[in-house]
Amino acid sequence: MEIAVIQDKILPMAEVASAYLDRGVFFGDGVYEVLRSYSGKIFALDEHLERFSVSLAKIEIHGVDIKQIRSRLLEAFEQAGIANAKIYFHVTRGSALRSHIAPKELKPNFFLTITELDDFTDQKANGIAVCTFPDWRWHRCDIKSLNLLPNVLARLDAAKKDCEEAIFVNEAGLITEGAGSAFFAVTDNILQTAPLTTNILPSITRKYSIKAARQIGMEVVEKCLTVEQAACANELFIAVTTKDIVGVVKFNDKIIGSGEVGKYTRLMMVKFATYVQ
Amino acid sequence: MEIAVIQDKILPMAEVASAYLDRGVFFGDGVYEVLRSYSGKIFALDEHLERFSVSLAKIEIHGVDIKQIRSRLLEAFEQAGIANAKIYFHVTRGSALRSHIAPKELKPNFFLTITELDDFTDQKANGIAVCTFPDWRWHRCDIKSLNLLPNVLARLDAAKKDCEEAIFVNEAGLITEGAGSAFFAVTDNILQTAPLTTNILPSITRKYSIKAARQIGMEVVEKCLTVEQAACANELFIAVTTKDIVGVVKFNDKIIGSGEVGKYTRLMMVKFATYVQ
Repeated sequence: MEIAVIQDKILPMAEVASAYLDRGVFFGDGVYEVLRSYSGKIFALDEHLERFSVSLAKIEIHGVDIKQIRSRLLEAFEQAGIANAKIYFHVTRGSALRSHIAPKELKPNFFLTITELDDFTDQKANGIAVCTFPDWRWHRCDIKSLNLLPNVLARLDAAKKDCEEAIFVNEAGLITEGAGSAFFAVTDNILQTAPLTTNILPSITRKYSIKAARQIGMEVVEKCLTVEQAACANELFIAVTTKDIVGVVKFNDKIIGSGEVGKYTRLMMVKFATYVQ
Repeated sequence: MEIAVIQDKILPMAEVASAYLDRGVFFGDGVYEVLRSYSGKIFALDEHLERFSVSLAKIEIHGVDIKQIRSRLLEAFEQAGIANAKIYFHVTRGSALRSHIAPKELKPNFFLTITELDDFTDQKANGIAVCTFPDWRWHRCDIKSLNLLPNVLARLDAAKKDCEEAIFVNEAGLITEGAGSAFFAVTDNILQTAPLTTNILPSITRKYSIKAARQIGMEVVEKCLTVEQAACANELFIAVTTKDIVGVVKFNDKIIGSGEVGKYTRLMMVKFATYVQ
């Protein structure tokens, strides 16, 4: 008889709940999004749904109704009644006995959570410390997939060093992005960040950060930084959905600028705030 | 109120079953093993448990009792009563609200299945077709982790081409291994396969295949093959726990050798069979 063991309980396979047979857990065979609301208003919902749709197509998960996800999300958001909420959702290819090739006509699984956002007031006011970590990730980080073990390992390392974020450095010694953020440097009035390739997530907060930079008169260069260039920048910051722009005041052992959130970074935070109202 | 949506059902977060909050699904934050039995006898159990223990340590999942896993596995195997069984198990870092950094003292999750092995008689007798796919995987394939989306995508592509296995080719044009197997070429009496690095799984079937090759008087070279070298080999085969050695008779569009399972491959299959009794 085919059986399963969950923790210490043996049971017939037919009695195993489908959540245990999710291809998300067997293979990370799914894609996700994270959004946030500002004072009751969800930011960039359409852009997140559009990116999600692209991620699904790239891993060939078909038959997902994006309009249905949109309405489920909005209904749940209203029901939660959380003004500053973190909204997470994923779709996996479905639940089935483990096999690389999924059965035909498998129904995708949908999962969403709405939780209170953590308070990042202190991080935004005073900046954060970051440290570098080898970019061990797969070669399709343009797909927002559930294969995030390298990101977890990078954050584990960062936490041991009292850093809030890990910054990935590839084998050529170039910075790609953060474990959960886009990464930017400011030198004079030039904003520099990695270009969008198959190794970089097309971050929505990155897009709005670039917009903010241009609107305050900065020049934008999309070119990877070396570790040395980042360490010598006037200002550094990360951009991430849940916190938008957060200054980086320490990069590995190097204090950046005056050790406070930089002038341009602050101007961009002010500009960004006008987009989310 | 913090809430979740599972498929189309909204529920309070406190009522969400822990299986939905598994770090396996959020991040692929876990490691796994696959074993098989031959006529009621599990092959290489200690070696699989040893490799599993190394995988756990490499991703810093602590507090897992390998002896307990061993006894649960043996008890389940006995209860299943399947002579030729496929035994799969994984451990994830545990279940919690999604955050890259796991809460302290999180209890790892254990999951195991025992199922009937598919019948590979035809594949073993006649060989299989394989095709190449870009090696998009992360840079720590020495860890047998749940981050397997590139493997799934490679197999999806292979299935469309009526191939049983996808063979990964890295950016340097070198063959690393199969999406679920080690890959070997035979030229004259020389067996060639990729060396063990952080990009290659230390496959147990690979180890026994090398042992078999040496015992039948072959020379073994651990060096990556180019795609061209593989296409020109006298014989090709893959090695995987569930099937041990399976000849490859078609590599992309190229028929290998006479289009039948090669002489050395057959000798190695016979030798391998002596290890599993």
